[in-house]
Amino acid sequence: MNEVAIIEKLRQLAARGARITLGIGDDCAIFRPRAGQDLLFKIDPMMEDVHFRRDQPPAIIGQRALARNLSDIAAMGGDAHFCLVSLALPRELGEKWIFAFYRGLLALARRTGTTLAGGHLAHSEKIHCDVTVCGSVPRGKALLRSGAHPGDVLYVSGRLGKPWDRPIDPRLAFGKTLRGRATSCIDLSDGLSLDLHRVCVASGVAAEVDRVPVVRGATVERALHGGEDYELLFTLPPGVRSPRGSIRLGTMVRGRPGSVLFEGKRLAPRGYDHFRSAMDENQEGVRR
Amino acid sequence: MNEVAIIEKLRQLAARGARITLGIGDDCAIFRPRAGQDLLFKIDPMMEDVHFRRDQPPAIIGQRALARNLSDIAAMGGDAHFCLVSLALPRELGEKWIFAFYRGLLALARRTGTTLAGGHLAHSEKIHCDVTVCGSVPRGKALLRSGAHPGDVLYVSGRLGKPWDRPIDPRLAFGKTLRGRATSCIDLSDGLSLDLHRVCVASGVAAEVDRVPVVRGATVERALHGGEDYELLFTLPPGVRSPRGSIRLGTMVRGRPGSVLFEGKRLAPRGYDHFRSAMDENQEGVRR
Repeated sequence: MNEVAIIEKLRQLAARGARITLGIGDDCAIFRPRAGQDLLFKIDPMMEDVHFRRDQPPAIIGQRALARNLSDIAAMGGDAHFCLVSLALPRELGEKWIFAFYRGLLALARRTGTTLAGGHLAHSEKIHCDVTVCGSVPRGKALLRSGAHPGDVLYVSGRLGKPWDRPIDPRLAFGKTLRGRATSCIDLSDGLSLDLHRVCVASGVAAEVDRVPVVRGATVERALHGGEDYELLFTLPPGVRSPRGSIRLGTMVRGRPGSVLFEGKRLAPRGYDHFRSAMDENQEGVRR
Repeated sequence: MNEVAIIEKLRQLAARGARITLGIGDDCAIFRPRAGQDLLFKIDPMMEDVHFRRDQPPAIIGQRALARNLSDIAAMGGDAHFCLVSLALPRELGEKWIFAFYRGLLALARRTGTTLAGGHLAHSEKIHCDVTVCGSVPRGKALLRSGAHPGDVLYVSGRLGKPWDRPIDPRLAFGKTLRGRATSCIDLSDGLSLDLHRVCVASGVAAEVDRVPVVRGATVERALHGGEDYELLFTLPPGVRSPRGSIRLGTMVRGRPGSVLFEGKRLAPRGYDHFRSAMDENQEGVRR
């Protein structure tokens, strides 16, 4: 099967999107936005030996390639609309791998109302996939990292440290319930210690964490510094009720912006800085 | 310099975009569309040993990574708005390479009114860059590949076969003049023979090419089958005046959809099918 035939099959598998007036097959995809929307965009890669190993299931790799981007839409309180997928892979993996990858990606796309609007296929020595997603919020309603105040209460949308091969769906519905209530929000893509540090820096505050909820079988260490849980970390003003399923972690406080205390001790932002550590991680295997 | 410091410097270099209400630095970029617009999206990779070699100038690589995507916006008659850039590169190339790459990319971005709205940096064994661009047309006005009729006249926006290291800027202004006039349009990204074949298939027509204009020093062979000229190939109904700079190539005719004659002989679509030939091309060096 050549590129044309593979793309034609993917075009048939991709669901139609109401506002994608032209999908795969021309120079560009066409999206017709609704009036009064702000559009949200994110691009993020999934790379062999950085985010996964070649022998892991392609359907999970495809699912995660989309999930990590949709999680950023969720963190802004957005609805998902469409994605563009650029996949490069070794020739020997063949069509079977490609369709399994897309099966995982498209199943999540259907569950979240995301249309596959376009993409690209190429050969490369290692698997490399970049996904761009588009979502939306009502104008001016995006949740940012930068609005937390001293006294706000810090929450997470679920337990941390989940295993690589059973990713949860990004918290899109949860994120929407936070619109107009949360003062800040971020998704846990690089680990609690680094992502909380980012919220604190952006908001000009410090944080005190009293507890970290972990899934069965995970360590606190992994919950603090592991990545890609796809849970949301957010702050609410004191007295504002948290959505069902929220778990309270601690409190935002006055202090050196970015500083985080965990059980009274300083918590360094040791999470995942791709650019500094991607190659280091390769030396010792793969991040989870 | 770690990822945070490099991205902070890129954020300062990136121009502000009037409708990018939030750029680099949060979970997503935010774009506020104007009413009555259709938005155009394209993702395309630039890969070491497929589209360029590592010893070529990083500023040109960066320029071309954006240009090939903007050329698709031009082909639909669009205005450019913003781009997202995911760049992975070997650690040993360092900051100097990164900033040279972005200097080339951002210079073209400024000339075309494209805002760098977001991106990602990672380490990899080979250089791999995916760029997503967003453009717009007035609602319903996008130029498609599929509207050519028998009797329409076939044109190109300039001479073909240009050298790799002196790319022209994508034909955005030219593409806009074709809105409401051209019956079909495509950009020459994979070579005249393949891209014209695509227009003919999409439109259900055949084509007869009488001449192919080449730049000084280029062969007709390269003009027919070489890629990434960033010129526009388009059709006008007979009697409709072509924009200044257009060069007439031939005529669209009734016949087997996709069939192309050049100087009376069948022209096979031998252009660049990335997925089938990317690795083959690697064997013999690099495409141009």
